[in-house]
Amino acid sequence: MKTSIGVDVGGTGIKAVILKKDGSVVAKREIPTPPRFTPRECAYVLKELIRGLAAQSREERCIVEGIGIGLPGLIDRKRGIVRYLVNIEGWRDVPLVSMLERDLKKNMHIDNDVNAMCLGQLLFGQGRRYRNFLCVTLGTGVGGALVFHKRLYRGSTGSAGEIGHMKLVTGGRHCNCGADGCLEAYIGNARIAARARRLFRSRRATPSRYTAGSTPALEDITAAARKGDPLAKGIWEDVALYLGTTLANIINLLDLEAVIVGGGVANAGGVLFNPLRRVIQEKTMRQKNRKVAILRAMLGKYAGAIGAGALTWEE
Amino acid sequence: MKTSIGVDVGGTGIKAVILKKDGSVVAKREIPTPPRFTPRECAYVLKELIRGLAAQSREERCIVEGIGIGLPGLIDRKRGIVRYLVNIEGWRDVPLVSMLERDLKKNMHIDNDVNAMCLGQLLFGQGRRYRNFLCVTLGTGVGGALVFHKRLYRGSTGSAGEIGHMKLVTGGRHCNCGADGCLEAYIGNARIAARARRLFRSRRATPSRYTAGSTPALEDITAAARKGDPLAKGIWEDVALYLGTTLANIINLLDLEAVIVGGGVANAGGVLFNPLRRVIQEKTMRQKNRKVAILRAMLGKYAGAIGAGALTWEE
Repeated sequence: MKTSIGVDVGGTGIKAVILKKDGSVVAKREIPTPPRFTPRECAYVLKELIRGLAAQSREERCIVEGIGIGLPGLIDRKRGIVRYLVNIEGWRDVPLVSMLERDLKKNMHIDNDVNAMCLGQLLFGQGRRYRNFLCVTLGTGVGGALVFHKRLYRGSTGSAGEIGHMKLVTGGRHCNCGADGCLEAYIGNARIAARARRLFRSRRATPSRYTAGSTPALEDITAAARKGDPLAKGIWEDVALYLGTTLANIINLLDLEAVIVGGGVANAGGVLFNPLRRVIQEKTMRQKNRKVAILRAMLGKYAGAIGAGALTWEE
Repeated sequence: MKTSIGVDVGGTGIKAVILKKDGSVVAKREIPTPPRFTPRECAYVLKELIRGLAAQSREERCIVEGIGIGLPGLIDRKRGIVRYLVNIEGWRDVPLVSMLERDLKKNMHIDNDVNAMCLGQLLFGQGRRYRNFLCVTLGTGVGGALVFHKRLYRGSTGSAGEIGHMKLVTGGRHCNCGADGCLEAYIGNARIAARARRLFRSRRATPSRYTAGSTPALEDITAAARKGDPLAKGIWEDVALYLGTTLANIINLLDLEAVIVGGGVANAGGVLFNPLRRVIQEKTMRQKNRKVAILRAMLGKYAGAIGAGALTWEE
């Protein structure tokens, strides 16, 4: 049985799968990301994790054809170098593939985590039916990846799809990247939570499961919105307005068939997706025969690891 | 000698060339666009024009391998149908290829005029050196076309590259398309001229060659800006700010190597391109090894016709 090992390195957890070529998962594992996550620490942890899965794959009589790793940052996949990671310090031009290859001796690929997730959707998820689409991940940051003519498009330096730093408002809110008015400064999950906290504080009735004064979890805002709480609904409607305006611009520019939304914030479900579809419908140019699907990503919380495993079989 | 015939249909003029496969032009012609430009009128005029060039090509011992036509609108090139034309009324779902093929019996292609121009730049112009780039045309409207992996990208319905209706300002100036805040509502050439008129009226000293109260030609604004006139310079700096902000967003999203700018407004030259490069430099994400070239289109006023001729040899 032909398989690959896929690893999704995140800020809080590292997820890994043994993936069959048809997209089904033979085994999965998750470990917390170590607190001091230096490149050396990372190489050590990844080797242990991958060796464990490789041993298991032998027991299951799998042939591991390659290893793919997705990381949250700018990746030079041709040279196997991590240029930098977002939100994880101390990573500059780290030759991760050569650090791992010595011990693992496998056909190894690294790529940006959103690219990996997008490839997973293209081969095994929501993207199977579409030629040209955008994947968006909503979490701490706002990431994106693009598929044109059924191929992942990475751009000239590997950074294509960066929708989080598209400017939404001229001279708007300050963003961590140094610029003003970036989408991420409006809909990053910390911003959503902070906004909810301010709103909930300003009134007596707070949503259930919410301790007054604390920063509400996104799940609490979602639960309150589903129960009809107007403030909570308004928070998601604002996210939909900001995100939908940006997506409509991208759909107009690239004439896409679909946008696939994943990441933690997407768990809000209908309270986010219903107003999002409405905003996009309003702001895209009306055109005969055009219907743009706005879909939630498939493959669950291992979507990134599955996509990383799929790097082995890209093209 | 292998050649094609390329035709660029515009709102004021129709240009045509006999094009060699190396991009050189054997002959060119230009006629004014007839005032009542119905589909039937168009078919008649195009047949005459193309027959004339075909006769000339026989004299020059050329083999005409195909005919390409670029038109300003939404084109279904696979079916050979003009869905609609911008600024020319009475065009809805016109089967132009079948109307012409009966008499011309040649391998015939139609496409959007900016796509054709962009293909010309890719094969014979500024685009030869780049894999991923955007072509922009600045004139009555603001058009765009995209090249990824050295191939023209047309999107799912053929409308990719529409940058004129990207939203620049939330709830901004009203656009002809029905929406608000579109780029075209700020930098279409009529808008630039109207703005210049208001500005010039508000003071005594008007630029040379300019009759007080009239709407200044773009050439007059450019000439005044080159002489250091602060109002005229300011007009181009504003165009650069609006256009540059949009282009920076697109460069960040698509990780492009180059933007190629053509069309009448681009004739402004340095007074537009210098501030444009500055705005883009400021607003694109800084990234190692990345330098985005902002270039003026090559191939002169027949760039569109040359690109249309190139449709014969695409792929």
